[in-house]
Amino acid sequence: MQYQPVRTWQMNAWYVAARTEDLGQSPLGRKICGEQMVFYRDQSHSPVAVEDFCPHRGAPLSLGRVEGGRLVCGYHGLVMGCDGRTAEMPGQRVRGFPPVKAFATQERYGFIWVWPGDQTKVDIELLPKLEWGDNPDWAYGGGMYNIKCDYRLMIDNLMDLTHETYIHATSIGQKEIDEAPVASRVEGDESITERFMENILAPPFWRMALRANNLADDVLVDRWQICRFSPPSHVMIEVGVAHAGHGGYHAPSHLKSASVVVDFITPESETSHWYFWGMARKFKPDDIDLTAKIRDGQGVIFAEDMEMLERQQANLAANPNRNLLRLNIDAGGVQARRIIDRMIAAEVFVETAPAQ
Amino acid sequence: MQYQPVRTWQMNAWYVAARTEDLGQSPLGRKICGEQMVFYRDQSHSPVAVEDFCPHRGAPLSLGRVEGGRLVCGYHGLVMGCDGRTAEMPGQRVRGFPPVKAFATQERYGFIWVWPGDQTKVDIELLPKLEWGDNPDWAYGGGMYNIKCDYRLMIDNLMDLTHETYIHATSIGQKEIDEAPVASRVEGDESITERFMENILAPPFWRMALRANNLADDVLVDRWQICRFSPPSHVMIEVGVAHAGHGGYHAPSHLKSASVVVDFITPESETSHWYFWGMARKFKPDDIDLTAKIRDGQGVIFAEDMEMLERQQANLAANPNRNLLRLNIDAGGVQARRIIDRMIAAEVFVETAPAQ
Amino acid sequence: MQYQPVRTWQMNAWYVAARTEDLGQSPLGRKICGEQMVFYRDQSHSPVAVEDFCPHRGAPLSLGRVEGGRLVCGYHGLVMGCDGRTAEMPGQRVRGFPPVKAFATQERYGFIWVWPGDQTKVDIELLPKLEWGDNPDWAYGGGMYNIKCDYRLMIDNLMDLTHETYIHATSIGQKEIDEAPVASRVEGDESITERFMENILAPPFWRMALRANNLADDVLVDRWQICRFSPPSHVMIEVGVAHAGHGGYHAPSHLKSASVVVDFITPESETSHWYFWGMARKFKPDDIDLTAKIRDGQGVIFAEDMEMLERQQANLAANPNRNLLRLNIDAGGVQARRIIDRMIAAEVFVETAPAQ
Repeated sequence: MQYQPVRTWQMNAWYVAARTEDLGQSPLGRKICGEQMVFYRDQSHSPVAVEDFCPHRGAPLSLGRVEGGRLVCGYHGLVMGCDGRTAEMPGQRVRGFPPVKAFATQERYGFIWVWPGDQTKVDIELLPKLEWGDNPDWAYGGGMYNIKCDYRLMIDNLMDLTHETYIHATSIGQKEIDEAPVASRVEGDESITERFMENILAPPFWRMALRANNLADDVLVDRWQICRFSPPSHVMIEVGVAHAGHGGYHAPSHLKSASVVVDFITPESETSHWYFWGMARKFKPDDIDLTAKIRDGQGVIFAEDMEMLERQQANLAANPNRNLLRLNIDAGGVQARRIIDRMIAAEVFVETAPAQ
Repeated sequence: MQYQPVRTWQMNAWYVAARTEDLGQSPLGRKICGEQMVFYRDQSHSPVAVEDFCPHRGAPLSLGRVEGGRLVCGYHGLVMGCDGRTAEMPGQRVRGFPPVKAFATQERYGFIWVWPGDQTKVDIELLPKLEWGDNPDWAYGGGMYNIKCDYRLMIDNLMDLTHETYIHATSIGQKEIDEAPVASRVEGDESITERFMENILAPPFWRMALRANNLADDVLVDRWQICRFSPPSHVMIEVGVAHAGHGGYHAPSHLKSASVVVDFITPESETSHWYFWGMARKFKPDDIDLTAKIRDGQGVIFAEDMEMLERQQANLAANPNRNLLRLNIDAGGVQARRIIDRMIAAEVFVETAPAQ
Repeated sequence: MQYQPVRTWQMNAWYVAARTEDLGQSPLGRKICGEQMVFYRDQSHSPVAVEDFCPHRGAPLSLGRVEGGRLVCGYHGLVMGCDGRTAEMPGQRVRGFPPVKAFATQERYGFIWVWPGDQTKVDIELLPKLEWGDNPDWAYGGGMYNIKCDYRLMIDNLMDLTHETYIHATSIGQKEIDEAPVASRVEGDESITERFMENILAPPFWRMALRANNLADDVLVDRWQICRFSPPSHVMIEVGVAHAGHGGYHAPSHLKSASVVVDFITPESETSHWYFWGMARKFKPDDIDLTAKIRDGQGVIFAEDMEMLERQQANLAANPNRNLLRLNIDAGGVQARRIIDRMIAAEVFVETAPAQ
């Protein structure tokens, strides 16, 4: 096994690169897992991703245009093929042009997914199955932030919702989160953290959600948070409140307001990531105004985490040798990092194993 | 004696970290002498300073809040004690948590002072004694600038007021400064530079000060500047004008307008510092409008130095091997640097002396 | 021959440092070929360039002022001589002050030229001879951009006008540029690239130029582009259109609209340059409004190149080991770089040749 530079993310996996609506007529340049990529839509409107580097003179192809489903460099007109090979160029024979990398993509559930690593290992079966995706019983709304911190700090953040009490005191935070015991476990390649609170008053965001679901918002409720990390870096959180004493998480639909907080966390560089956040809900899926209202509220809440995470990143960078604590509330994040490390080690070992 | 990384400031000394009015209900993050600190007020309203680093996950404590005189981390609610030990945390036993640094503080003369170095050597007797501080016969007004240059360039600036002729030509500068001889001397750990000008016309700032003191501003005056550096980095400058021929600096109060330019120069990093500037005056101490007027004028004047100092810093950084000149006018600054070097050497020697 | 650090530009040559109108009463600080210079006008109004570094305390002299044709430091009043030796300083003997570098300058053709290298090799005969400069039969208008890329990327850009079709599609670009063959050759120290297009419709910019020259703009034309690189980094491009079938480039004046695109490309650092662009024309030289109109149009066109060039620079910096293609259309730029490399090698060899 050869020496490998340290890598802090999986390469052979599907990451969310963009939302369907982000990729229209123009090419979109975006760095994913350290790879500078350009995304565009081919003639069948399918997403394509290649390196954002024209083999002619190194211009970024994302400054070019898409003509008839083909990516044309904006500098001297080279036409790049979706396989990373130059298709043509005015007045030139292009057969000997060096190729650039091409990356497998998929469009599903309203997202464009990309596989940044070894293209011989692309496995479409590894795309996550999302109950709420492309499902008319559910509604989804969300957004994206570019956050200047290691993507794993965001995973830590989401696997320990204690922080809601402090960062999100005016929306979803409440003292009872702190006081409720947390339980963490690992199931295969997933890390799960659960917290259940009974007979409490719902905080403002959830009172709104109760009303939206035609439920009284001034009675005691049972509240739950079930955070589920899965590789390479997705965190799905089942959250909700039910009128107290009807089974909580298992209460019948007409007595609860439940949804899934969706977090796709895509590394950009060692110190930055693309954070795709949203909420999928099973009630009133056709209520577009409600979707917008929830998305706006969530956008405000998640923006509250940004300064904390970016300043935490700076503090850790300034103190590289300091060990952080791993408390019981941190167990979900700690286990998620162990899973990530295991996946990376498996990749690196396979890549560098000597031929028989 | 072990190898020590070069340090360009004293650590075991009192520095001004903030003005009293800068520290209210919210914690204040500020880097002092390379240490990232957070300041807040405890239950008795006394200032406290600890490292701006939560031992749980490295969040900056300055993003938190103060509750009942205790500093609460804004991420997961850890309560930091004023000794750098975690006081408590919801749902946790904190006895084994690693402590962060705590720094001795004092509030005096309208400033918050901090001792960034060895806490076993804290000596409250080393706080400077300021005749004008907390003294009803005097008035003080001032401000603070964050300047992107080595704090010693600011000391140089203040120990050679020749620059007033050029940088501050329209306020306190005048050609006679250049022409008057300058005298420098060292007294113990202080470096002193004096300049006396006789039978000159007062420049605009001093004409205003004469009028403010009910003195004619259109007659010849004697003017003085006595710059006094004391460790670690304070420069107090006695300045004033008296109607000519009445003894100048020693003239009776009703014939002169005199004050002390106050400069507390606190290193932030090797290439930046906090500059606390102000003026203390013994005339009309109750005239709040005059205090504001002087402060505003001084603020404009000292801002004129900023671009010069920051560009000088850049020029020196680009030419690290070039020796600068040390002229007679520079003697005050040169001596101040020698005193600083001596104080640093004494600290380093003590720290690294082998045990008997 | 000793080891020499890699240098990517000639030092012993004339570069454009500023336009005549850029240098008025105040000193002008500008980095040229890695040298931080300050320009000012002496008593005879001639430009002078010395290092932008006061030998006293390292202040940038460009923050000072010019008094009676002498450069006075804005910090402590040192008067710098045009030979880099301190002329005087209030209250000081300056004979022993260390000199700073002085750089030969010339003002000609509306530009201020500087020789950044070995001052013993300054040769006024090496100033380019420009037919259109200081010539009443011609008019000139232009501007300057500071562009954050290697100056050689700009030379590449100008020696391959294929990019007009893509970057400047709405002004001077047209598909026929792509389709016309390009011919490159080297003549001595010059690299030349030519392209001729016959029986085409003129693009918008040239239709305007035809009308300005009282020529029909809706008839077929012959168009030409003759790009001429000369060391150290100048590119003059003869461009124009003539009513078709009258000899094209050689057509009589009353049937064509012709001009010279002027490009002086002055390195600032390894990754930035000063781009002096403009157009010299032989028709209607007294029409000031036309000069302004052309300059404004050209300013818009050349600004379109900036984002491409700066992003290309970033892409190349991120991929330092990748070889770019050298197609036939790139031959002019490739030859220009060979000439530059030859000139640099000659300088380095001479500088480091052992004494006999």
